[in-house]
Amino acid sequence: MILTVALNAALDVTYHIDQPVTPHATHRVRAVTSAAGGKALNTARILHTLGESVLSTGLLGGTTGQQIAALIPDGLRHRFVSVAAESRRAIVVADPADATGFWEPGADVTAAEWSRFTDRYDGLTRVARLVVLSGSLPPGLPVDAYAQLVRIARRNRALTILDCDGPALHAALPEGPDVIKPNTAELAEAVPHLDSGNEAGVVEAAHALRHAGARTVVASRGPDGLIAVSGDGGWAAAPAAAIVGNPTGAGDACVAGLARGILHGQPWRHRLRDAVALSAAAVLAPIAGHVEVHDYLRLRGTVDVRDLAMSNQHVSDNTEEQ
Amino acid sequence: MILTVALNAALDVTYHIDQPVTPHATHRVRAVTSAAGGKALNTARILHTLGESVLSTGLLGGTTGQQIAALIPDGLRHRFVSVAAESRRAIVVADPADATGFWEPGADVTAAEWSRFTDRYDGLTRVARLVVLSGSLPPGLPVDAYAQLVRIARRNRALTILDCDGPALHAALPEGPDVIKPNTAELAEAVPHLDSGNEAGVVEAAHALRHAGARTVVASRGPDGLIAVSGDGGWAAAPAAAIVGNPTGAGDACVAGLARGILHGQPWRHRLRDAVALSAAAVLAPIAGHVEVHDYLRLRGTVDVRDLAMSNQHVSDNTEEQ
Repeated sequence: MILTVALNAALDVTYHIDQPVTPHATHRVRAVTSAAGGKALNTARILHTLGESVLSTGLLGGTTGQQIAALIPDGLRHRFVSVAAESRRAIVVADPADATGFWEPGADVTAAEWSRFTDRYDGLTRVARLVVLSGSLPPGLPVDAYAQLVRIARRNRALTILDCDGPALHAALPEGPDVIKPNTAELAEAVPHLDSGNEAGVVEAAHALRHAGARTVVASRGPDGLIAVSGDGGWAAAPAAAIVGNPTGAGDACVAGLARGILHGQPWRHRLRDAVALSAAAVLAPIAGHVEVHDYLRLRGTVDVRDLAMSNQHVSDNTEEQ
Repeated sequence: MILTVALNAALDVTYHIDQPVTPHATHRVRAVTSAAGGKALNTARILHTLGESVLSTGLLGGTTGQQIAALIPDGLRHRFVSVAAESRRAIVVADPADATGFWEPGADVTAAEWSRFTDRYDGLTRVARLVVLSGSLPPGLPVDAYAQLVRIARRNRALTILDCDGPALHAALPEGPDVIKPNTAELAEAVPHLDSGNEAGVVEAAHALRHAGARTVVASRGPDGLIAVSGDGGWAAAPAAAIVGNPTGAGDACVAGLARGILHGQPWRHRLRDAVALSAAAVLAPIAGHVEVHDYLRLRGTVDVRDLAMSNQHVSDNTEEQ
């Protein structure tokens, strides 16, 4: 079973408007659509769509939290911990040209609520094979919140995929997350002295993050696909042609592909092919954080995966790799 | 008792952001404030603040409807009818310079729900002395919804103040609302061949609307104050100096002043003085649709009210004036 953790789940609200967004004007919204969102819930929904056994946990608060829970698809199991403050809404205003976003900060979580969550999480990770930790931290949580969750998972012999950035990522690396999935911007922020714009720079940055504690680094590079560096080697995976569409949620689909491949013990080449195909399918899907299975299956055949040359020094690092 | 009717009540959500609103960018919201909104609820809250006996009714739906109900101030009595669809949110993004608005369309009300509401309203107007009908109509309601409500109130001997615009106003005029309160833009739309930009034009437009059925027309002209034309005469009322602040909700404060004066049988000069002072106090208040009582009391002494010359023909119109 895969456990997904949404500490800062969101009610994704899309406002469809017919005029362009104009600062300091008033806009009549033609239609409103809502979905349960946040990165971990997007990943959970895609895993559920693919028939995987997935349980979603995290924090939900207030009326917005209830709205999020009500929008989780039927059959996708969840066991969230309630907090007193309101969960956040993420408003996307879709005008004829593009999208404008307004992100609320999220529920201000108390120390007691966090303690209640880690207790719940401790129990769940005893039965989960793999834990997906992704998304921002809500206000009130300590910067080492993900570090704590990686440590608990390791103690309970569950594998971890961590998708976060900034100080939360830095704090968690020493705990040895099994996979981290920075995008190019996050990689550049995490390893600022390296050039993450070209393949060699991405590989060097990945080595630096592995040296800091991550067992495998999967760097997502938008339309250029993925570069993965593990203890067994390195690979680049890319779609045959650039996919045009909405890239929101493509990273969450990538994480779903990695989680699935790890759960089923697939080799890295297979995991990366699936992750690229799911990302591309998410770009094609009209709703952020969703995929159509037929798109995924069709695109999977078009993904190119190749080995990267690794120096012996790098390959011998971090031999505890799962 | 004053009955206020909010057919399209709103959850007013204000997003405070530190950067300017930029189309097609993503904005982090620093703070979120929420209030029960919509024109009729604003008027009800101000009447309650002033110690008047007020009962609020209307339509509320879904989770947003529950959130609105939870935000109605303690002690302000309400008896809303529930509808299945979601009540609307009105998002205001307040950046350092100004506000940008996004208005949801509102709950799609069914014929059965409207029938249940008119039954409830029929009972409430038997005990109300005055009914305030204000704001837009939600989707699904017939264009003559306010016309029906004016007719029911008249049958039950309750006076009516109607604050709406466009086709809903036009449809209601033949039912003889006791007071309508168009602003200059609404007046120009309702009587397009007249120049509503100057005092004589406003008076002519008011006569036209009285001829169409309204008993008294109170035209609100922003910083220029009010012009009222009734069967007894005409008056202009204005603050001593322009008030700088947030004009959102000033019209709802004006309606509260008129409602109060009518309830207590005050002469029109008194009603208009109160309405101008309450509008000015609403402009001063930091939160839309609120007033500070001390601002209102202070400003009341500064309002200038003068008689307008009326021709005999006009004064003799509509002698049923309450």
